[in-house]
Amino acid sequence: MVPVLDQLRSALGPRVTTDPSVLDRARCDRSGHAASAPPIAVVRAQSVEDVRATMRIAHATGTPVVTQAAMSGVAGASNAGAGEIALSVAEMTRILEISPDDELAVVEPGIVNAELNAQLAEHGLWWAPDPASREIATVGGNIATGAGGLLCAKYGVTRDAVLGLDVVLADGRLISTGHRSVKGVTGLDITSLMIGSEGTLGVIVGATLKLRRLVAGDVCTLTATFSTVRDAAAASAAVTASGIRPAIMELMDALSLRAAHDLLGLELPADGAALLAIQTDGPDAAAEADGIARILAGHAQDVSLTRDREEGEHLLRIRRAMHHALSALGSTLVEDVSVPRSRMAEMFDEIARVEREHGVRIPTVAHAGDGNLHPNFIFDGDEVPDVIWAAADDLFRAAVALGGTLTGEHGIGVLKARWLADELGDDQWQLQRDIMRVFDPTGILNPGKVFVDAE
Amino acid sequence: MVPVLDQLRSALGPRVTTDPSVLDRARCDRSGHAASAPPIAVVRAQSVEDVRATMRIAHATGTPVVTQAAMSGVAGASNAGAGEIALSVAEMTRILEISPDDELAVVEPGIVNAELNAQLAEHGLWWAPDPASREIATVGGNIATGAGGLLCAKYGVTRDAVLGLDVVLADGRLISTGHRSVKGVTGLDITSLMIGSEGTLGVIVGATLKLRRLVAGDVCTLTATFSTVRDAAAASAAVTASGIRPAIMELMDALSLRAAHDLLGLELPADGAALLAIQTDGPDAAAEADGIARILAGHAQDVSLTRDREEGEHLLRIRRAMHHALSALGSTLVEDVSVPRSRMAEMFDEIARVEREHGVRIPTVAHAGDGNLHPNFIFDGDEVPDVIWAAADDLFRAAVALGGTLTGEHGIGVLKARWLADELGDDQWQLQRDIMRVFDPTGILNPGKVFVDAE
Ligand SMILES: Cc1cc2nc3c(=O)[nH]c(=O)nc-3n(C[C@H](O)[C@H](O)[C@H](O)COP(=O)(O)OP(=O)(O)OC[C@H]3O[C@@H](n4cnc5c(N)ncnc54)[C@H](O)[C@@H]3O)c2cc1C
Ligand SMILES: Cc1cc2nc3c(=O)[nH]c(=O)nc-3n(C[C@H](O)[C@H](O)[C@H](O)COP(=O)(O)OP(=O)(O)OC[C@H]3O[C@@H](n4cnc5c(N)ncnc54)[C@H](O)[C@@H]3O)c2cc1C
Repeated sequence: MVPVLDQLRSALGPRVTTDPSVLDRARCDRSGHAASAPPIAVVRAQSVEDVRATMRIAHATGTPVVTQAAMSGVAGASNAGAGEIALSVAEMTRILEISPDDELAVVEPGIVNAELNAQLAEHGLWWAPDPASREIATVGGNIATGAGGLLCAKYGVTRDAVLGLDVVLADGRLISTGHRSVKGVTGLDITSLMIGSEGTLGVIVGATLKLRRLVAGDVCTLTATFSTVRDAAAASAAVTASGIRPAIMELMDALSLRAAHDLLGLELPADGAALLAIQTDGPDAAAEADGIARILAGHAQDVSLTRDREEGEHLLRIRRAMHHALSALGSTLVEDVSVPRSRMAEMFDEIARVEREHGVRIPTVAHAGDGNLHPNFIFDGDEVPDVIWAAADDLFRAAVALGGTLTGEHGIGVLKARWLADELGDDQWQLQRDIMRVFDPTGILNPGKVFVDAE
Repeated sequence: MVPVLDQLRSALGPRVTTDPSVLDRARCDRSGHAASAPPIAVVRAQSVEDVRATMRIAHATGTPVVTQAAMSGVAGASNAGAGEIALSVAEMTRILEISPDDELAVVEPGIVNAELNAQLAEHGLWWAPDPASREIATVGGNIATGAGGLLCAKYGVTRDAVLGLDVVLADGRLISTGHRSVKGVTGLDITSLMIGSEGTLGVIVGATLKLRRLVAGDVCTLTATFSTVRDAAAASAAVTASGIRPAIMELMDALSLRAAHDLLGLELPADGAALLAIQTDGPDAAAEADGIARILAGHAQDVSLTRDREEGEHLLRIRRAMHHALSALGSTLVEDVSVPRSRMAEMFDEIARVEREHGVRIPTVAHAGDGNLHPNFIFDGDEVPDVIWAAADDLFRAAVALGGTLTGEHGIGVLKARWLADELGDDQWQLQRDIMRVFDPTGILNPGKVFVDAE
């Protein structure tokens, strides 16, 4: 048989690269974890036909394929290693259609979220999924991971914002799932099954997106400090319980708040102090902000409120500094548990317990509006030490015991595969794996990710 | 082997019935189509354990099982026939939990939609799916069909309102899918896959529902008459394009409007006249209604607007009379195509063409806010004549050509199975069927429905 690299080259010519620095970059996403060796080649697809050609060759030769987009993932899901083809869709960036009347857009997968939204804004439209990585992550990557973000409690998750998909199957065949209409129940919901499938079921080469109209009206921003993280969590639960639905409600615990203040050169907060940063939008933004301020007053040490967008951005800068602030503390293993909103204060108690019992530091930020927490386990060096894995294991089990789930938005990838069966149960794990096998009978799509057999 | 009926009786005692009149009722839903012979038995499950016991016996004996709830379906999906067990979950009606703080409820599948919503209202909550059959249909049936309704454009479809499910598999094993939190991407989205699966993947024995808070404020109602259905469709598209999102926007064409007037004993409308009935709700209901009235003024012959709830109900009574009004015209085959909202006027042109070319009458009502049309093919007698099938085939293809889909909310069942592969394509049909086989390797779950091999 002609070697796979020669087959790729003769079918795809200059789109195939084996430049060592390119191969090296294909080993790792933003999780801090890398495949131990580089892939065979990186294919930079520019069309559906390129993707199909790649999959046909991979299928015929039994070569594993890792679909890659912006590689901003934090679960190691797009890391490509020895013997694998890295298939990048990052250059498939066209917008094929924007329909304001039907509030939909048809796009190629590689377009960056923020770029799409800039173009949609000219039509008074937006696509709601808003991961903090929206300036770099792709729409296809958002769909493949089921990305969340800051606005989910009010504006929904990625699952709520996709009408249909074009998918290249493991053997190169192309299917179109879903529909362009608001409603549609023809057959099984394969569109939803693809959302969050992390490259294990097929390559998304096109997406029909459900859009919203840009929200008119003000944006109001509040920040409030609390003497303990428990108070902050209780205050956010009180806001949710009041029925007011802020667009953004972010919580920072004491360690993360301190790290952000440090990075920004601000006076350090009081020991143990935690922060809530809240934004309301839409026609009722001002009244909602006033209502929230009244609720917070019962819990907080102080509350700031502004109706000015720029001042609001200034108030939010502490939250936005988090990613860099935490990197400054050491290496991190980012957890992503999600719990029912009423259980958030208890989850913070559990984090404190895990810190104590395992002797680790876990600065935590939370999308408090939807109960999604990012506990960041800090350690030294490149390898996650056993004590961190043990602490993470303890924390994950605590989240599930509170009615929560292992991952709210980051996905399973390689980092969380070890816990998947614990949450799903063996019967459902097996069922899901068998469904995966229907899409990928020979196991060439992102092997070693998500569904990994226990040793 | 002990006969299946004896096994059922010894495991389930009085929950098993073979009363001929009960068996006879199990042959047919509300589609007007019935299985040609009655099932072996009806099992009236009262617990998860009853369902599991039934499935274990069915699995061991290779006996087909048709899950039944309120049997209000209109696609023949719950019709049980010769050699089959009809497994009713209609007596599993408990509400296990209502959590206002987390805006969720956990229920058994057999609770009737309106009954659940009456209980939720006491907590200031509601579950948004609102099929016109909500006074009789069950929550589990709504989920199994992916039911739609009148409020979908503003408040979403069933897929948007389910967080997790408990499912008994074909062999009696029980799995729990999804999560209680707002976000969750742990593994494949089996919850979504179950929604609209029409009893082919498993028996839903519990559901965690995503609730909304009751909408405060006014309800405003508008009706407008138009000289042609095309004008009415254009007006509804203009409302959608304006960005105003009415809660309800229903369209009645000339034939259906005339039938409703006839039934209610009202003066008959002008030849060709069509009606739009629109409702706005929430804090901005009045302003939105005024905005809609201004848009309609450019298209309509006359517009009525009221801010009084009772008067509003009076205006809507013509729309609510539709189901009975159409029954009065003869037997009906109800289609359920859904098209992008901007293509509705064209879809009405196609309906007129099909009426002309096939010499049939197709009174049509539409959920105009979301592009979902119900063309009702009228015929005499019990059997759908070939000319009606041919006209329906023509109409379905016209809808797909406009970017639409075969079924917006009613499902495939037996009535639409013949067209499923045409819309999905052979590759995707096969893929879906293979997924179904993962859940149901021996083919005992609702055979002959949805996935039917071409003769
Ligand atoms: C600073 C920072 C902030 C972040 N904030 C958030 C956040 O708020 N919320 C959140 O959810 N995530 C967040 N992330 C994680 C990440 O940005 C998201 O997971 C994002 O959706 C990944 O998109 P990507 O284009 O980078 O995909 P990649 O990382 O390239 O790929 C991710 C996974 O999707 C698969 N994939 C990608 N494209 C396709 C395709 N076309 N077809 C099939 N499979 C495909 C890959 O195989 C892989 O399994 C953040 C990351 C960073 C670095
Ligand atoms: C007057 C009238 C108006 C209607 N209006 C609407 C409307 O506006 N929108 C709409 O979408 N539909 C409408 N329908 C159709 C019907 O009411 C819906 O499809 C409804 O969701 C069916 O619920 P059910 O409890 O009657 O289910 P059934 O008819 O008993 O079953 C329907 C299907 O679901 C399966 N099923 C039921 N329960 C379960 C379970 N627990 N586990 C697994 N499978 C199960 C059955 O096997 C079958 O395939 C209407 C029907 C009538 C008669």
